Amino acid sequence: MSNGLTITEKIFSRASGRPVRAGDFVMASIDRAMAHDITGPLAVEGFYEIMRDEKEKKVWDPEKIIILFDHQVPADSLNAARNHILLRKFAREQGIKHFYDLHEGICHQVMPEKGHVLPGQLIVGSDSHTCAYGALGAFGTGIGSTDMAAVFALGKLWFRVPESMRFEVNGKLGDRVYSKDIILKLIGDVGADGARYKACEYAGEAIRRLDVSQRMTISNMAIEMGGKAGIIEPDGKTEKYVRERSPGYRLDEGLKSDEDAEYAEVREYDVTGMPPQVACPHNVDNVVDIDKIEGKRIDQVFLGSCTNGRFEDLRIAAEVMDGRPVAKGVRMIVIPASHTEYMKALRAGLIEEFVSAGALVESPCCGPCMGGSFGLLGPGEVGLSTSNRNFRGRQGSPDALVYLCSPATAAASAVKGKIADPRSV
Amino acid sequence: MSNGLTITEKIFSRASGRPVRAGDFVMASIDRAMAHDITGPLAVEGFYEIMRDEKEKKVWDPEKIIILFDHQVPADSLNAARNHILLRKFAREQGIKHFYDLHEGICHQVMPEKGHVLPGQLIVGSDSHTCAYGALGAFGTGIGSTDMAAVFALGKLWFRVPESMRFEVNGKLGDRVYSKDIILKLIGDVGADGARYKACEYAGEAIRRLDVSQRMTISNMAIEMGGKAGIIEPDGKTEKYVRERSPGYRLDEGLKSDEDAEYAEVREYDVTGMPPQVACPHNVDNVVDIDKIEGKRIDQVFLGSCTNGRFEDLRIAAEVMDGRPVAKGVRMIVIPASHTEYMKALRAGLIEEFVSAGALVESPCCGPCMGGSFGLLGPGEVGLSTSNRNFRGRQGSPDALVYLCSPATAAASAVKGKIADPRSV
Repeated sequence: MSNGLTITEKIFSRASGRPVRAGDFVMASIDRAMAHDITGPLAVEGFYEIMRDEKEKKVWDPEKIIILFDHQVPADSLNAARNHILLRKFAREQGIKHFYDLHEGICHQVMPEKGHVLPGQLIVGSDSHTCAYGALGAFGTGIGSTDMAAVFALGKLWFRVPESMRFEVNGKLGDRVYSKDIILKLIGDVGADGARYKACEYAGEAIRRLDVSQRMTISNMAIEMGGKAGIIEPDGKTEKYVRERSPGYRLDEGLKSDEDAEYAEVREYDVTGMPPQVACPHNVDNVVDIDKIEGKRIDQVFLGSCTNGRFEDLRIAAEVMDGRPVAKGVRMIVIPASHTEYMKALRAGLIEEFVSAGALVESPCCGPCMGGSFGLLGPGEVGLSTSNRNFRGRQGSPDALVYLCSPATAAASAVKGKIADPRSV
Repeated sequence: MSNGLTITEKIFSRASGRPVRAGDFVMASIDRAMAHDITGPLAVEGFYEIMRDEKEKKVWDPEKIIILFDHQVPADSLNAARNHILLRKFAREQGIKHFYDLHEGICHQVMPEKGHVLPGQLIVGSDSHTCAYGALGAFGTGIGSTDMAAVFALGKLWFRVPESMRFEVNGKLGDRVYSKDIILKLIGDVGADGARYKACEYAGEAIRRLDVSQRMTISNMAIEMGGKAGIIEPDGKTEKYVRERSPGYRLDEGLKSDEDAEYAEVREYDVTGMPPQVACPHNVDNVVDIDKIEGKRIDQVFLGSCTNGRFEDLRIAAEVMDGRPVAKGVRMIVIPASHTEYMKALRAGLIEEFVSAGALVESPCCGPCMGGSFGLLGPGEVGLSTSNRNFRGRQGSPDALVYLCSPATAAASAVKGKIADPRSV
């Protein structure tokens, strides 16, 4: 074993209060815990079950728990309405400082945006895409509601410190090719379980060149190859983003993997000349170059989600659409990822552009990605989506097809009425 | 019997091809037939049942049928997605000229807005608030899906020509009191079945003074007192509105009730000094002056629907809110009634004002009024709504309370966090 540590080992060493290595079992202190309207209620129930013999049934730290609503917003069923009532009551009774009701946005956007994610933190969320926080150099990971119940009670959770898998991504992205294309390429290459329980570490000049918004897309989807986390070493861009939300924050220069850190695997990529990528039904790792699927008819385009619903994503899509309407016979749903992103898009004129083009623009929420009661696909329909999962039935009928792509590809396809290469529309 | 005719008798005489009077049974030609995503599929099924032995299974006139989606937009269930697919196919196969997919808006807004409502027409819609078209001097009435199937096939439907009930509304509305307050007052006075099967005719200086948007609110709710229609004699304002959508249209000066027309009942009102009105749970006719209910806590405010989701309604609400945020603990949902109204609101800066205030602004659709999968109230919750029905369970839990009011009252209450008088906020 080398002496060097991965950023993951450094984070777990701090959180465990002792030097630890990949493979070690640890009881780690949690820096932030996030639950949303789908997974929160079960966590609350579990919490009260754990505390049933305690006189003071109080959470470990009401300032470190974040509760928000995003999956069923506004309430799409009586059950959702009841869940919202339950969580509002819990937040009020426990004095949860960071409680966001249904107007704030999607958890993985709101968390970094509101300063609840700092580089080097250990953050758990009862949502599988909690790995998104790796974009800021935090170890974010999804846990189940019962684990979250334990965190609510204790502020600690056991982990097996994961091995790391390093993706060295070099080269330069071409015009209208983005981080979504990179991550789809990686997932297609590694496979849905290729990084199982590994901390994915994205490095290389192509990653360093990405802005924070683009990085979030890449970290968000680590789970789609089985990754436990999806970390990008924090740099000046990270520091700037974080400082704007947590004034006074200063980057810890040591918060990165040592040069002689040990990896389970290192993979190298050169993205120069890489065409836009599309994940085909019914798995995220069923990825092809755009030319293999160009021309496929579509019924619905969804631009949004925690993966690609930021202002930058919407701006890219609007640029590609360039004032052209959504094609006849195609419906387009646009949902900014948060209230803040919505306001930025509105003030930049993007909302007007999308609505003028014939798109439905909805309030921030998970929308069709969640597949609950929002923009479902019927049997035989084809959806193109900037979200992160295309599993059978995920966005409606098990007999519908869902393709995943970047905002640019989604926008090009919306105006063409079929899957289209954004470089040639 | 006098010699004079009501506007309703004139419309039915023309549509029946012979002079008819209230009480006559007639087979009338339909000028326009409208079906939406909830009621349309059953009408289509019934149509093919009627046509089962016909070789050519064609609708009577594809230019006179309007099909659109508004109740489950975007598709909120697999069933909704299937219904949308079915209606798209029907529209395509039958060559339905006026088919609007899910981006256009609520039927009763889109119909007049797109020029599908002309004064003097007999219009049926498979939706109970089809009486809204009376605002333009048309006899609009809601019918069931099986009746609509017959209309699709034959273009005719039998009616018993309704007696008319005249509401003479005089006086001058005070500041921040609107047509919604008038119609609530009338319904509270007459009762939910007080105008059963009658053609309600709204007249008097207070009605004449209303703009077309405000008139639509009054006509829309005729059904809430049992009315078969809710007609306002067309005038210069009507002509202007219609001509902007149907160029060349000229008002028929004879299209009004004769002075010696016979009425089942005439009621007189003076709205001078009338305070804002609120319909309390669980019936629309349970109406009180605002001071009787002021201060009641609320959980949700809904500004929208075919009753009060127009640009003018949104502008009134924004003026009342005057830059103040939605009160803590209250959620507000704003849904413009159509794409066109949305664009007007957007360009006037209203969308920005609502979103900045913390409201959810959604794409045009029926939203919470429909009570399907959109912004449901949980048990014990209290909703304030600018829509037209507050029946038990209409907007969610049977244990929720829904109050109905004007956009001004809704806006005042949203910023105060409780039912509030818009004249004093």
